[in-house]
Amino acid sequence: QNKSAYWASIEADIDTYLKKAIPVNSPASVVGPMHHLIFAAPRTGAAALCVAACELVGGDRRQAMAAAAAVHLMHAAAYTHEHLPLMKTGRPGPEPEIEHKYSPGIELLIGDGLIPLGLGLLAGSFLDRTRNDPDRIVRVMVEITRAVGSQGAVAGLYRKLGATDGNYYDYEVMEYVCRKRDGELHGCGAACGAVLGGGAEEEVEKLRKFGVYAGMVRGLTAAAAAAAEKNHGVDLEGKIEEIKELAMMELKGLRGREIELISSLAMFFKLSRG
Amino acid sequence: QNKSAYWASIEADIDTYLKKAIPVNSPASVVGPMHHLIFAAPRTGAAALCVAACELVGGDRRQAMAAAAAVHLMHAAAYTHEHLPLMKTGRPGPEPEIEHKYSPGIELLIGDGLIPLGLGLLAGSFLDRTRNDPDRIVRVMVEITRAVGSQGAVAGLYRKLGATDGNYYDYEVMEYVCRKRDGELHGCGAACGAVLGGGAEEEVEKLRKFGVYAGMVRGLTAAAAAAAEKNHGVDLEGKIEEIKELAMMELKGLRGREIELISSLAMFFKLSRG
Repeated sequence: QNKSAYWASIEADIDTYLKKAIPVNSPASVVGPMHHLIFAAPRTGAAALCVAACELVGGDRRQAMAAAAAVHLMHAAAYTHEHLPLMKTGRPGPEPEIEHKYSPGIELLIGDGLIPLGLGLLAGSFLDRTRNDPDRIVRVMVEITRAVGSQGAVAGLYRKLGATDGNYYDYEVMEYVCRKRDGELHGCGAACGAVLGGGAEEEVEKLRKFGVYAGMVRGLTAAAAAAAEKNHGVDLEGKIEEIKELAMMELKGLRGREIELISSLAMFFKLSRG
Repeated sequence: QNKSAYWASIEADIDTYLKKAIPVNSPASVVGPMHHLIFAAPRTGAAALCVAACELVGGDRRQAMAAAAAVHLMHAAAYTHEHLPLMKTGRPGPEPEIEHKYSPGIELLIGDGLIPLGLGLLAGSFLDRTRNDPDRIVRVMVEITRAVGSQGAVAGLYRKLGATDGNYYDYEVMEYVCRKRDGELHGCGAACGAVLGGGAEEEVEKLRKFGVYAGMVRGLTAAAAAAAEKNHGVDLEGKIEEIKELAMMELKGLRGREIELISSLAMFFKLSRG
């Protein structure tokens, strides 16, 4: 199996699932911006890791699909709100400007709607044809709400918002923000996939750690690229390589699982962003 | 039992629960604004209805506490975001101005954090000493995410945001906004309490309808009062009385349940707001 085809097939399945996910009872005026904001947010890999982890531990891809969609929707909500004018601080931040198709008020409201949409899909997977086990759904719900709440993504974005001109490009700040905003969501995605696929506790924890490192690599790589574009070059290459090594160590610990799938996971870092 | 003491004891229990609910692992800088925004949002009654409905169908108050807290947190998140400067349209809206203790960026982020906090508490009630049944938790999760998502509160606020100067005080617009923003959350609260307390399907649906009407009464009463303050008097008294009648009809259909509790529910409308 071609490894990048593996990731592409996961992304395509998640997109198909997301397209069908917007509730048909929503007002027509709300559907347009929802659809736009769900797909305008660049793919992070966190949702794909959820599916890959599920398959790695021997589960069926369909079992992970609602959780993967939820993980993407949490990211899309955060991404939408991160780029609202309220979050600008006047500093030359590493975030690139993005195009806004809708007014800030609409982006605020629709972003708010993406969070319950995602968690509702997950809860609803109890009733749909995947018939996920409610115990696992509830556990995954705890994982996701923790990763995006005040201990996770919100803590990271809060730190970024509060960073002063002086320390905005400090490695310590960037590392914290990328760990909380990107690392924990990827780690959560991988852990949730492993839980839904019926993985052993040890596998769940190894895949979670792999995911945290993988998300940090993505986040730091993007932050370094964006900073370079604004002539605030920061040299993160050595740090990023160290984190990749840590990630690979976790994969080596996954004994007795398909080598093919493990090496697909290792491919994660070679994939382009977005 | 003194009826307003009944409601006061529910509100006190919910407050106690919420005070303990902020995750201890959150950064200290995040805890202050979370605590503030959770308690700055005026009580709506939706969370209290959740507890009352649970008791009415014979359940234990503790079974409904996480869901009640979740319902309040959904309201607090929406309330926080409703009052962000992005939601201002320049129109003399019926919303009163509120004091802001934190910057808009912080209110945006912390508001985002209240949604996963609420749903995480609910999911976590599977593991805490109430040991709620995961099937019921998942069902309640579907209820709450629907009530606050693009078919519920978001749809209402979207309509309010998009209302023109000309139709902002139209009854049809106000009715839609109050039904979606207040009615569905109260209906959801009552339905969730009945589900968690082990009520029969018919009771769940009657309590949901009662809740929807009760929420609309609250919403329309507040909107009329705020409009009057801005000299945009709108006479909603007749409409509000009609909706109260509809609410009371639903209570009459609850046969075989404690008359005392049913008449406590009827007291709902006499309670002051906030």
